[in-house]
Amino acid sequence: MAYPRLQWYVAATSGEISRTLLERRILDEPVVFYRTESGLPVALAGLCPHRLYPLAQGRLTGDAIICGYHGITFNSSGRCVHIPSQGKIPDRMSVRGYPVQEVGGMVWIWMGPPGSGAPGPLPDISRAGIAAPGFRHDFNPLFRLPARYQLLIDNLMDLSHLSFVHAATVPDGAHVAGVEPQISESQGVLSVIRKFGQVPAAGFIQFLHPDIVGDVENTLTSDYFGPSFINAGGPWIRKPGESVERQMNFFHAMTPETPHSTHYFNGVSRNFSLDNEGLSQMLLGQSAAVIAEDIRALEILEAHMQAGGSNLKEISVVGDAGALRVRRNIGAPIQAEQGDTPVAEQAKRPAPARI
Amino acid sequence: MAYPRLQWYVAATSGEISRTLLERRILDEPVVFYRTESGLPVALAGLCPHRLYPLAQGRLTGDAIICGYHGITFNSSGRCVHIPSQGKIPDRMSVRGYPVQEVGGMVWIWMGPPGSGAPGPLPDISRAGIAAPGFRHDFNPLFRLPARYQLLIDNLMDLSHLSFVHAATVPDGAHVAGVEPQISESQGVLSVIRKFGQVPAAGFIQFLHPDIVGDVENTLTSDYFGPSFINAGGPWIRKPGESVERQMNFFHAMTPETPHSTHYFNGVSRNFSLDNEGLSQMLLGQSAAVIAEDIRALEILEAHMQAGGSNLKEISVVGDAGALRVRRNIGAPIQAEQGDTPVAEQAKRPAPARI
Amino acid sequence: MAYPRLQWYVAATSGEISRTLLERRILDEPVVFYRTESGLPVALAGLCPHRLYPLAQGRLTGDAIICGYHGITFNSSGRCVHIPSQGKIPDRMSVRGYPVQEVGGMVWIWMGPPGSGAPGPLPDISRAGIAAPGFRHDFNPLFRLPARYQLLIDNLMDLSHLSFVHAATVPDGAHVAGVEPQISESQGVLSVIRKFGQVPAAGFIQFLHPDIVGDVENTLTSDYFGPSFINAGGPWIRKPGESVERQMNFFHAMTPETPHSTHYFNGVSRNFSLDNEGLSQMLLGQSAAVIAEDIRALEILEAHMQAGGSNLKEISVVGDAGALRVRRNIGAPIQAEQGDTPVAEQAKRPAPARI
Repeated sequence: MAYPRLQWYVAATSGEISRTLLERRILDEPVVFYRTESGLPVALAGLCPHRLYPLAQGRLTGDAIICGYHGITFNSSGRCVHIPSQGKIPDRMSVRGYPVQEVGGMVWIWMGPPGSGAPGPLPDISRAGIAAPGFRHDFNPLFRLPARYQLLIDNLMDLSHLSFVHAATVPDGAHVAGVEPQISESQGVLSVIRKFGQVPAAGFIQFLHPDIVGDVENTLTSDYFGPSFINAGGPWIRKPGESVERQMNFFHAMTPETPHSTHYFNGVSRNFSLDNEGLSQMLLGQSAAVIAEDIRALEILEAHMQAGGSNLKEISVVGDAGALRVRRNIGAPIQAEQGDTPVAEQAKRPAPARI
Repeated sequence: MAYPRLQWYVAATSGEISRTLLERRILDEPVVFYRTESGLPVALAGLCPHRLYPLAQGRLTGDAIICGYHGITFNSSGRCVHIPSQGKIPDRMSVRGYPVQEVGGMVWIWMGPPGSGAPGPLPDISRAGIAAPGFRHDFNPLFRLPARYQLLIDNLMDLSHLSFVHAATVPDGAHVAGVEPQISESQGVLSVIRKFGQVPAAGFIQFLHPDIVGDVENTLTSDYFGPSFINAGGPWIRKPGESVERQMNFFHAMTPETPHSTHYFNGVSRNFSLDNEGLSQMLLGQSAAVIAEDIRALEILEAHMQAGGSNLKEISVVGDAGALRVRRNIGAPIQAEQGDTPVAEQAKRPAPARI
Repeated sequence: MAYPRLQWYVAATSGEISRTLLERRILDEPVVFYRTESGLPVALAGLCPHRLYPLAQGRLTGDAIICGYHGITFNSSGRCVHIPSQGKIPDRMSVRGYPVQEVGGMVWIWMGPPGSGAPGPLPDISRAGIAAPGFRHDFNPLFRLPARYQLLIDNLMDLSHLSFVHAATVPDGAHVAGVEPQISESQGVLSVIRKFGQVPAAGFIQFLHPDIVGDVENTLTSDYFGPSFINAGGPWIRKPGESVERQMNFFHAMTPETPHSTHYFNGVSRNFSLDNEGLSQMLLGQSAAVIAEDIRALEILEAHMQAGGSNLKEISVVGDAGALRVRRNIGAPIQAEQGDTPVAEQAKRPAPARI
């Protein structure tokens, strides 16, 4: 499957992982999650190697999992520590442990295959206002997207769709498609930026910043941190006389579940009105409404792509420059990771054609 | 797929196509339908070539469709007339327009592939009492048949099944299977005719024609106008002294949706009691009851054909002569249209064997 | 498909087969069942060879079936005896009749392909207390297992899972996994026996046998009669001074429906308290509760095996010796029956690896 594997993916928000076993399919592999008694997150391959029963159907004893079928037991490193019917435990009776780390209220998992070397660094998500000084961030509950993750990346890297898919839900979204985006890259993050210039501090901006009167510079950006994380930043505005830009971010983490479905994590961060809980709830609600529209659109798109039956060759336009660059960004490592392996799934995705 | 493509198919009844975009899958292609401001029906390929989003999710502006994802706009010929992010519009940014015509309260679509020449003539459905002098016709709502269209053609061309599938719903149907059918061809229509000879004007005939007393000639026929249209005509009777035969027709249009499902259009026509609205409703209701039985039977048959697991070689009988001739009628153009292409779907359909 | 075919399978309990036509898919073949007017069970290939319509949709006339589509009629041997549209009946218009016999309140069907010789003998199920002197047996209603039959065989041949899957429902089940099983073979039945030695006649044993005080020998066994029938016997105990062992059996018949689903027949037999109807009901209820747990576990396992995505190579342990011997027992005849045919389904099932 066409997944970049040498990546950190969001496996869960911190609150989802507990002393109750959780199974989640990631990059089409079943993984079981839990916390040790000391609170550290653990991710193990999800099937007991004895008869392939899902470990999430078992139960914890201390930091170990007892398989729910025949009682074979594994510690938090994935090593077998007990077989009921025999004393000797063979080395090969073990399950893989995945590297995990907990940053920004999210548990991240490294999906590099065994033997592919040490995990790389996590993307610097403080740039999206997560675990960053002066910012707060809040999460929506997990969404499930019944579509391949690439469609969500395309969606988020071309915010001109705000003017159409979200015409009713995004304030001032109607103006987005008409503004030509600029592309820039900095510290490994690819940004597709729309600068609206001086606009009146009205509408949504006034709602967020009632203390600002007059015109402000307004910016909207899609920041691509890698195939698992994109930040849709904006409005970013500056009050005359203030040195710090006021930023609001709708951040998105997409983790492939299967070739045709995606775990979709979403939250909102900001560096103003930090104590306003009602504002957090309102922004999360607005983000959820927008996401519901995207999920419906991408589900329809996925269904048509699977049904086929038309000439499915895409034709790209000038506004796609950012999304196309991201596609190449994703495609290259997949090809490098997979060597000469033919990628059936990738082949089904039509190659973009510039015009 | 084993569809005859150089054919007119019923895409919709006239009332289904309006200023609201309608997507319908025809021969496994998504097609979007609407009417221009002047009321003409339009059929365009259903997916925007930019990112393959279904055009039916967009909206009309005048006679043009604005795609609901990124706003690319196409006129009623399928030519792109607007791209939000750029001024120049490349020629290849267009969608196919299908030939359509509106006849007999139905919108017909020509599914010949691009480059296959001009559409042929529509079948002369006035022979089924549609848009014919002295006749009226009425439609049932669209049925969906979860089975391949060939099964419906087989079904309609062998009305001996009236004696079994419809033993409870078709008046006097029990006698059909015992009457040997005659086959004739005239003006491109293949007819499988059952002549019942002199029968008393009782039962259903008396209900339809209370003014007739005594014996009448009674005829039942399946008229094959092509793979998209079949008329089941009968009872056709003549009142002594009248020059015009009194005809009642249950006509059927079958349009493949996918390899395993079919849009099933149905209506009733007659040349007597033209002002009797109650009679129209009663006949449509009876037809719907019969069709419900056929849909259930063909759904079961389709499911078993897909499940496989038995020796699926058919053995035909004398009564199948008409249906077999139709099968050859369908098979030949498909082969001719497809050249040497192996037809996987066709291969799954067992070849008929004469006995 | 990887089914042993030269076997007797339970097709139905006796009460399921009547003068009402019953279709049941067996080894992925549709079969129609009924009784003749004299009460004998009949099993015919399920599809009419004319247009492949399921015969179970037709109706009986005497001992013959009239197909519900076009009225072609077959007697209880599968020979065609009537075609409505013609007088001559060709020899090839016939359906296969399967050998059946009715033993122990069950109708058994021989699934050997045509030309594979006479059916072999039925397994001697009197050893499971069925139709055996001094025993009674009762049936649960049919269960449907949404998993391949091999998973059920694995399950029943390794009763150590009682300690985990059924920890809450099986009395004293917690002790099973800790007892090393012995394997023996006698009269073609492979037994995996757990001898618990002298145990107090307490708990479940006391409930079953209130007249016994003190210690008793207790035995639990899985008896493999072939791929279609396994008896889980126990507790088997002996009252001091009695010559006959008191036996209770939970017997199981598994009949593949499709490659991924199984008809699961279950009942209970015993040679004590024969007139206690309440005890029968209680034991059937307990067995149904246990089976519900197994069905849920095996459904989860089947789903994960179909989803794939992990290293699905099994690692076996000492306690698997019985189940592995059965797997070889099943695998050998399948290979012999199929000759060199590649068995796609079998290949999907990972080969067991001894450790």
